[in-house]
Amino acid sequence: MKIDRLSWVPAGLFVMVMVFGVAATANASSSGAHWGYTGDVGPAHWGALDPTFEMCAKGKNQAPIDITGAMDTELAPIQFAYGPSEAEILNNGHTVQVNLAAGNQIMLNGRTFHLKQFHFHTPSENTVNGKFFAMEAHLVHADADGNLAVIGVMFNKGDANPVIASLWAQMPKKAGAHKKLEATVDPMTLLPAAKDHYRFNGSLTTPPCSEGVFWLVMKNALPVSSAQADAFTALMHGPNNRPVQPINARPILE
Amino acid sequence: MKIDRLSWVPAGLFVMVMVFGVAATANASSSGAHWGYTGDVGPAHWGALDPTFEMCAKGKNQAPIDITGAMDTELAPIQFAYGPSEAEILNNGHTVQVNLAAGNQIMLNGRTFHLKQFHFHTPSENTVNGKFFAMEAHLVHADADGNLAVIGVMFNKGDANPVIASLWAQMPKKAGAHKKLEATVDPMTLLPAAKDHYRFNGSLTTPPCSEGVFWLVMKNALPVSSAQADAFTALMHGPNNRPVQPINARPILE
Repeated sequence: MKIDRLSWVPAGLFVMVMVFGVAATANASSSGAHWGYTGDVGPAHWGALDPTFEMCAKGKNQAPIDITGAMDTELAPIQFAYGPSEAEILNNGHTVQVNLAAGNQIMLNGRTFHLKQFHFHTPSENTVNGKFFAMEAHLVHADADGNLAVIGVMFNKGDANPVIASLWAQMPKKAGAHKKLEATVDPMTLLPAAKDHYRFNGSLTTPPCSEGVFWLVMKNALPVSSAQADAFTALMHGPNNRPVQPINARPILE
Repeated sequence: MKIDRLSWVPAGLFVMVMVFGVAATANASSSGAHWGYTGDVGPAHWGALDPTFEMCAKGKNQAPIDITGAMDTELAPIQFAYGPSEAEILNNGHTVQVNLAAGNQIMLNGRTFHLKQFHFHTPSENTVNGKFFAMEAHLVHADADGNLAVIGVMFNKGDANPVIASLWAQMPKKAGAHKKLEATVDPMTLLPAAKDHYRFNGSLTTPPCSEGVFWLVMKNALPVSSAQADAFTALMHGPNNRPVQPINARPILE
């Protein structure tokens, strides 16, 4: 019995690494530099905290942005192939992140991007015509070459959100802790019914602020209760939104 | 007489610096690192030649590009306020550049960009659906905050171009040399009659490859004779076009 149990634990960890390994690297820095959202390690200082974070300061194509003056075009619909998925939930000290087992993907102009993880920011990071939303979810996808596509979903204050309720009930209170979700989660439940969106070219919103990221921000918001948004902010010890960045030469499309 | 002449020389230089100083900085690096278009200092090595050149290697939003798959949108017309201008012509060893006196500008979505200089590449740097043109002119503009907008004009092999003929007759043969143009030059004569264009977000195509540059590439080409294009390439000791760069997450608009 003891041998079985011991041998099971590493096997279980191995599976977690296999399933979630890529997800973790998609949003993690190779640097261990400590960063945060306030004071000497806040967003204004990210670029100076570590040489690998320099794009946070130097980049001309950073996210989030204030979405305004979008240009009308025929955006190809995003084709979703999402379904109920095994997942682990992680409190990494910067956000609460759900790392998903492989199998969810989107098609974007004929290219396949695999959904690795989703996580949350309060208040929203992107704004629309200067307006903040109570919360924003980021669904982070990568293609086979490591190019990233992030879908942003806004949450307006309103009714309690049952998907968020389920996640919050399981989220680890301690930074660094993670656990397997009790039931599968369908990332489709984190998307509004209408998939109209804004598109722009940006970056990760956390160090190392890598650029070349396809941003797709849904126009329609989901509800979240004040209590739910506040519980998340409290767990993060304050807001975890990077301020909006200069748009520079980028067009925003809709 | 001698004193007059001595005092005139510095005054003349001073005027040149005042008029052309911003033009020079708009396309110059603060680094003196030697770079070129072939061998150990060629485009594949630019990012490693100097720390200030790192975007040449790391940037995800670099120029030139192959213009393909452009998305239809309502691009605001570029409003031109160009006219006959005093100018100097410079052979900087990388290109032949015409630095213009102040006074030429474009309006782009309500923003004013001042034309600083134009210069040439053989063959073209940007391509359209994989097609190279015989030559490309870049008209480099800056707004009051130093944001850059570059208009690219393609030249197809055909009749001799009288504007190019006049410039080539005056271009210094020696790298580093410059002289005042004998007559004014109207940059309008370097634009096609129809101003339809492609728009994308990119970078300088030479070190330091700074990003955040508005690119506007004219759809209609001007003529240049084979002899004119060849004379320029010979003066440059070979092609001076950076290879096209990955588009990554950028939309191209038309």
